[in-house]
Amino acid sequence: MATDSTSRFSTRRLGAELLGTFWLVLGGCGAAVISATFPQFGIGFLGVALAFGLTVLTGVYALGPISGGHFNPAVTLGLAVAGRFSWGDVIPYWVAQVVGGLLAALVLYVVASNVAGFTGVGGFASNGFDANSPGGYTMVAALVIEIVLTGMFVIVILGATSPAAPAGFAGIAIGLALTLIHLISIPVTNTSVNPARSTAVAFFAQNGASGQLWLFWVAPLIGGALGALVWRGLFGRD
Amino acid sequence: MATDSTSRFSTRRLGAELLGTFWLVLGGCGAAVISATFPQFGIGFLGVALAFGLTVLTGVYALGPISGGHFNPAVTLGLAVAGRFSWGDVIPYWVAQVVGGLLAALVLYVVASNVAGFTGVGGFASNGFDANSPGGYTMVAALVIEIVLTGMFVIVILGATSPAAPAGFAGIAIGLALTLIHLISIPVTNTSVNPARSTAVAFFAQNGASGQLWLFWVAPLIGGALGALVWRGLFGRD
Amino acid sequence: MATDSTSRFSTRRLGAELLGTFWLVLGGCGAAVISATFPQFGIGFLGVALAFGLTVLTGVYALGPISGGHFNPAVTLGLAVAGRFSWGDVIPYWVAQVVGGLLAALVLYVVASNVAGFTGVGGFASNGFDANSPGGYTMVAALVIEIVLTGMFVIVILGATSPAAPAGFAGIAIGLALTLIHLISIPVTNTSVNPARSTAVAFFAQNGASGQLWLFWVAPLIGGALGALVWRGLFGRD
Amino acid sequence: MATDSTSRFSTRRLGAELLGTFWLVLGGCGAAVISATFPQFGIGFLGVALAFGLTVLTGVYALGPISGGHFNPAVTLGLAVAGRFSWGDVIPYWVAQVVGGLLAALVLYVVASNVAGFTGVGGFASNGFDANSPGGYTMVAALVIEIVLTGMFVIVILGATSPAAPAGFAGIAIGLALTLIHLISIPVTNTSVNPARSTAVAFFAQNGASGQLWLFWVAPLIGGALGALVWRGLFGRD
Repeated sequence: MATDSTSRFSTRRLGAELLGTFWLVLGGCGAAVISATFPQFGIGFLGVALAFGLTVLTGVYALGPISGGHFNPAVTLGLAVAGRFSWGDVIPYWVAQVVGGLLAALVLYVVASNVAGFTGVGGFASNGFDANSPGGYTMVAALVIEIVLTGMFVIVILGATSPAAPAGFAGIAIGLALTLIHLISIPVTNTSVNPARSTAVAFFAQNGASGQLWLFWVAPLIGGALGALVWRGLFGRD
Repeated sequence: MATDSTSRFSTRRLGAELLGTFWLVLGGCGAAVISATFPQFGIGFLGVALAFGLTVLTGVYALGPISGGHFNPAVTLGLAVAGRFSWGDVIPYWVAQVVGGLLAALVLYVVASNVAGFTGVGGFASNGFDANSPGGYTMVAALVIEIVLTGMFVIVILGATSPAAPAGFAGIAIGLALTLIHLISIPVTNTSVNPARSTAVAFFAQNGASGQLWLFWVAPLIGGALGALVWRGLFGRD
Repeated sequence: MATDSTSRFSTRRLGAELLGTFWLVLGGCGAAVISATFPQFGIGFLGVALAFGLTVLTGVYALGPISGGHFNPAVTLGLAVAGRFSWGDVIPYWVAQVVGGLLAALVLYVVASNVAGFTGVGGFASNGFDANSPGGYTMVAALVIEIVLTGMFVIVILGATSPAAPAGFAGIAIGLALTLIHLISIPVTNTSVNPARSTAVAFFAQNGASGQLWLFWVAPLIGGALGALVWRGLFGRD
Repeated sequence: MATDSTSRFSTRRLGAELLGTFWLVLGGCGAAVISATFPQFGIGFLGVALAFGLTVLTGVYALGPISGGHFNPAVTLGLAVAGRFSWGDVIPYWVAQVVGGLLAALVLYVVASNVAGFTGVGGFASNGFDANSPGGYTMVAALVIEIVLTGMFVIVILGATSPAAPAGFAGIAIGLALTLIHLISIPVTNTSVNPARSTAVAFFAQNGASGQLWLFWVAPLIGGALGALVWRGLFGRD
């Protein structure tokens, strides 16, 4: 029946968004928590930037054909604003993304706490400004960078998936755009551009990150919507 | 005759799996043993993560058309569970993979021991937990991370090679998924997700790695099977 | 009407060049200013090289179908010399590129100055030689490297976008060529090969970069034109 | 006339090999000489590995459609042994490759010597063993690693360009295979697998590299031929 098959179809799509955001948080935040600061041989901010990008690159090729491969509430909003995604599906996607992210943070917490001499997870790759910014950047810097970078992320997504772009390459462009975004901005906010990622780890962080979580919903959502509006204003709906 | 041509066909496929796993161990473990800890200019965990991924990326493009490009017993099992690979070919593939890995470890041993002041190969890029974990992670952490990451690896492979995914890009997605997996988990277990890779170097390691080798068969195989079951449960056989 | 639609068409193309050069300067110079020298975990010259390349890789996939994806006055000149771009569009493209770059430098200045203990932006990722060369290279070295690398950049662009090259891959080749160029030459001039990028940050730099800006117009433009002439001489117009 | 047009055709192909090998030596050895050991922010062996790979990746997309994109005498030999390249063109290709490499080394010498406090180019990214091996590896280790890695390089090339491989992706696989090869073996020999690259910088090196240059012709050529024979033995001529 139509209802059943639609429901089945939604399970597939929401399952893909949940799995993809699970992968994004496990991979990106996992690399940050487990490997970034390992003495001498750790991967540093460059490795974390690569990890975040590769979660999306691989997720888009593996799960994009099923759900579109958003894995990010700000991207889902941007695509809706751009006329490329149904408004009625926005909230279900957001729920799947946040749940997937939280599950990943839980797995990461189990791994990170089963280590010799464990004394707590600290910041747990959470996002923040002022005292919670890796480089001591202010709220103004955080707002500007998160809005602008999320906007450009949505513009890259809209462009790389437009009919005029070469088919198949969008996963590379979108994933590596997220790597680039992290190469720029980890010192500012630890880089969010993704409210689901911020929420997932803020839940476990021991540095008061949840008190600043509002900014990592507000700024990426504004940025995602603005990016979509700039795209439509300059280039129309394609 | 049919028998001959089938046999010829199997030699091609098993030869490709042997060569590909040779390349995976020579490249990934070779980078770890020879280049990772070189003073000042060494490639660190980031370079090792890239090396492992590139063995698979290049191996999939070069040998994938012949054998499917598994190079990993857990991947072979996962593909069989997912209904994408013949159960009768699982054991021959495993044998070819382990033999290829051991040959690579032998070549690597010859190179690594022909150096001024050689005093032994030490851990030889082997996998382990507790005292043999680079970061001192426990058996619980090792089991969780190896199961989850192998599961996600198989999910990426199933998705990126599904009929709905853009043709040709699977090698990039699969190879870089292995890079991502290493970016996350080298400090935990030195990263296996591949029993053939673990077996190959455990044979030569001088840190008691072979006593923990069971975990790097059990966890990746469980993970590979679980990944395949999650995929089928959510998305069906495609 | 024809005029309107042409004008609309130009707005699209110039908007894409402005956005793309904005992205190039924000991403490449942003990574250099914010992340390269972060204590211990900073991305270093390798991360900056990757960032510059990824701005172009992502920009070419997202915006290339609209404007051709130059984002660089020397590339625009080279394409015109090679007979692949209309001479009448050169100056409008240059203006859009410089304006986009300046806007990015302004955003970057706002972010970089909103940090605890801010005392100025210093070199601000500007290009230079002698005292303004990261490694103390002379004007001769700067001229040679900028001419040769811009020339090779244009040759890669002409080759990767020629009808004989595999369709769709140009964005990868061109973006990663810019990464390669930075891997070679950041110590020499901080790497320009792009007058718009040099101009954008020289405007804000506090190390006298604007006094050496002439070289980063002259050398890249000569190099871009020479690259195009070498290509035509060896391979004809294709 | 036929003669003229053949000659013209040869000029195109030899010009492409010369330019491509110029790019390989300028990019790979340039990154090593100029950027690898820069204090604190240098790109290290990882950056050099990436640079070598990107010279080939970009060169294959830009020039491969013209000449096949060898840029390496051992690759040219391997392709001839595999039956994919005309024996009569081997020597002309070798000459073009060596000339291109030497021109790049000359440009690199001019840049490297125009720096404050210049005292000589030292090893100049040359290849070597024993005292000239970065990690003190012996001649045996050098022979084994150069033969095996060149052999695997040719196998990747033959596989990625076979009719069964997905079209267009060969440049990515081949370029990143060279990155992988460097990630493994820079500490052993500074990585050659390419006699033209070794010859080009040995000419300028001030560490006696030319006395060991024989090994970096012998081993890569043996390796390239063996790789081709392994491929044909296992997989036939495709």
